[in-house]
Parts: sequence; structure tokens; C-alpha cells
Amino acid sequence: MKTARFFSRGRQHSGTLQGDVLLDAAGEAHHPDEVQFLLPVTPGKVIALALNYADHVAELGFKQPEEPVMFLKPNTSLLPHRGTVEYPRGAQFMHYEVELGIVIGRDARRVKARDADAYIGGYTIANDLVVRDYVSNYYRPPMRAKGWDTFGPLGPYLVTPDEVPDPYALGLRAFVNGELRQEGNTRDMILRGPELIEFMSRFMTLQAGDIILTGTPKGVSHVRPGDVMRLEIDGLGALENPVALEDESAEPLIAQEGARQ
Amino acid sequence: MKTARFFSRGRQHSGTLQGDVLLDAAGEAHHPDEVQFLLPVTPGKVIALALNYADHVAELGFKQPEEPVMFLKPNTSLLPHRGTVEYPRGAQFMHYEVELGIVIGRDARRVKARDADAYIGGYTIANDLVVRDYVSNYYRPPMRAKGWDTFGPLGPYLVTPDEVPDPYALGLRAFVNGELRQEGNTRDMILRGPELIEFMSRFMTLQAGDIILTGTPKGVSHVRPGDVMRLEIDGLGALENPVALEDESAEPLIAQEGARQ
Repeated sequence: MKTARFFSRGRQHSGTLQGDVLLDAAGEAHHPDEVQFLLPVTPGKVIALALNYADHVAELGFKQPEEPVMFLKPNTSLLPHRGTVEYPRGAQFMHYEVELGIVIGRDARRVKARDADAYIGGYTIANDLVVRDYVSNYYRPPMRAKGWDTFGPLGPYLVTPDEVPDPYALGLRAFVNGELRQEGNTRDMILRGPELIEFMSRFMTLQAGDIILTGTPKGVSHVRPGDVMRLEIDGLGALENPVALEDESAEPLIAQEGARQ
Repeated sequence: MKTARFFSRGRQHSGTLQGDVLLDAAGEAHHPDEVQFLLPVTPGKVIALALNYADHVAELGFKQPEEPVMFLKPNTSLLPHRGTVEYPRGAQFMHYEVELGIVIGRDARRVKARDADAYIGGYTIANDLVVRDYVSNYYRPPMRAKGWDTFGPLGPYLVTPDEVPDPYALGLRAFVNGELRQEGNTRDMILRGPELIEFMSRFMTLQAGDIILTGTPKGVSHVRPGDVMRLEIDGLGALENPVALEDESAEPLIAQEGARQ
């Protein structure tokens, strides 16, 4: 089942995708092109992985890390399907990253990998955007590089596990303005969902609605204001987001000196 | 005003401290020693600062960072006053850190330092616990070191700004089993609340209830299972939490190899 939350005809709905249409709780049909999508889930926390695809690690010239490299994205960075990504004034290098998002279905603490499937509520597409200008250390990206408002597009659907028989054989693709830029397959993930859930839940409770962004394969490239990103994962749909320059009134970047006056 | 949330006499209450007692919404008095405290706020995000006191930076032998070193603690790490902190099996070095917590009062984006006071909802005491065994790089502590469930005691009260005329002249103290171990003053903070709000809100929305942990002064030291930590900040009260060894059934630490089978 593919579920979505959306505004349509003056109301907020939760619905399921049936063929080409979204059916709301009352059974009325809405065309996905005519609704405003909301986030498919409301995560308590967003846990992202760096360097979790061998080809991407090689592309960056790094060694495979000895343990999962995790960081939190602030909830305020999340953005629904078709929401506009803010391009910081003065930034030179903004990259998209297509990622399989694993949504936790029920609270998990000290769950073994072999039992982890029961804690997975579904899958979605995530775009772990980053401004490389602000990255000084790939292993632990600072909040400013990945935590900017709108740097976490997610959706459009929460897809239940029964529709994803093998989550580790899914093609991932990223298009910019219709041009294929990034292509990979979840089979090349270093640590898979169940192993990540075991690792993380050993020390922190994963709560229903929390989401794990499982890392990106090779092929990241720049986007600029005016570009449209389209991220696809087999069976999960397509997540589209345009990029626009932030408010003209914003000061370019952050004056590092200014913050310490 | 000091507000608290607590369980007492079979019900959950929100109350205010008047003299020695907590008055609930119905005007009934509860003695603070006889209630079970809950978190005074429910943050959407918990933003912590590393290396924000000059004396602590020197103690660690580091240079002062060029910009604020921020990281997120997962909400699931938060723990109320008197809650028990879990000591990971196999850990060698657990430290407390007494910190002034600044609670955001209303949503803030692109707020200047000079306007920031209007966005502060109050202050509280925070304990930014860490297991140093897991820290490989002080500049960006990994999630496991600081994000463990129970590693974020907070409270007991949310203290409104009118009761804290100068938040940057407050003594901070940490006692372990009654012995004074850490002592400092918020005047030695490198970046203060308004400057932190300007820096952070430049790129992400600070939402009502979000909390900023403003860093710790010098004097951190070990705690062990069986210890009781008592953290005081002038005018904010005292935050007490005992430490206990985690569940006997838990495997000692995390087998790094195990996660990558």
C-alpha cells in the first residue's frame, strides 16, 4: 500500500494510491498532480548515514568507515514532494543525494537484525541535500551543510513492506531537469536496514515514525537555482523538488566573524 | 515563574513553583519531593554546543573553534529530573556536563542577536552526558557518545526570563555524591544565547520548545554506576539524576564487527 497525506479541495486528507488516483478516507478520488503533498510521516528523528555505499565511498576517495557514520538531520529540514528547496545565497556547491528512507513502524530498543523487519513500517524516497561549501569533514557533516531548512525532501508516499519484497534490489535514480545524473542500486548498500536498526537501537530507542536515510550511491553532482530534481526508486514512485534562490533579503552565507562579536 | 510538569496523586499536572510547593492548575499544592517530574518542555530538537567555554576548551587542549560546533541530541536521549541515567556496560569514561539550557519560546528564522531575547521562552538546567570511550573527535561527537537513551537530563523547571535578569552571570556547579566537582560561570560562555540564535536561525527554523544546550565549563570528571549527580545553576534550581548500570542482558558495548556481517 502507498499512503500519502495531502491538501486537496480545501481540506487535509490521508489517502492511499489506487492505480493513478489518491483515494481519501471517504473514498473520493484525487489526482496526484492536483493535490499539495504533505510529508508522508512525521518523524521524531531523522537519522542519516554517510558513506554507506561502497561506490560512493570510492568516488570520494575515502576508506570504508569502521562503523556506521550517523548524523541527525533536524526535523525542520524536512520538505514534502514538490516543495521548493532553498538555495543559500553565496553557496557554490549544492548536491542532491537519492536515498532509500526506512520508516520505523514501532518503537525499537535492542532489536537484533534478524528481528528487525517487524519494526519497519515502510519505505520512502529521501533527498539528503547538502551544501558542500560548508563541509570540512565528510565523516561528520556539520549541521549547516545538511540541516538547512528544506534540505530534507521526503515522499511522496509511505510504501508498506508488503509492496517492497526485496528492498535491497531497488534501482535508485536522480534526474536534474530530466537528465539522468545518478544511478545506483540498493544492493550496493554497505549496512542494510536490519543491521542499522540493530546498531542504532542498541543505544537509542527508534520510535514509530522515525526515519533512517540509508546513504547514497555514487553520482552526486551540482544543482543550481531553477533546476528541478526528480528522484526515483523502483516501486516507490518519484520525488520531485525544484530549487530556488533563498530570500533576496538574506545575507550571503553566514559571516563567521559576525557570530562571535 | 518556574513551571514544571509532573505526576502526582495519580494524575499528570502542569504547575508552578510557589515558595516550596508546586501549585497545580486547580491551585492544589504538591511537594516537589513527592512528585515524579516530567520534562519541563518537549523539544522538537535539542541542539548542543561543544567547546563553548574558553576554560573547557583549554582543559581539553583545543583551540577555540572558528564557528559554533553544533550537534543534535536525539529527543529520545532526554530524561527528567530524578530519572535514572543508564551506564552502558563496558564503558570506561562517562562524564556529566552541566549546561545552561535555553528554551525557544516562539519560532525563529533569520533572527538577529539584538532581537533574539523575544524568542527565548526560558531557561533550564541540562546535563549533556557523554561516554568518552566513543568519542574519536571532540569537534563532532558521534551519536553513540552523546545520543544514548537517558544521556540528556533536563529540568526540573522551565524558568521564565523575567526571573533570570542576567543569564550570563550565573554560577554553574556539578556535584557527584555531594562532592563539588565542576564549577563555572555563564559569563565565560564564548557564544551567548542571542548570538547562537542568530547563527542557528540563519539556516534553520528554531521552533517553540526547541532547546539549545550552551556548552559546559571546565571540570568534567567521571561518574560510575551508583553515583548521584546534582547540577545547580543560580536561580534555576537543581537537577538530580542517579546513574545505574544498564540491563544485565545487554551485550557489553557494540561489537563493531557485528554490525557489518
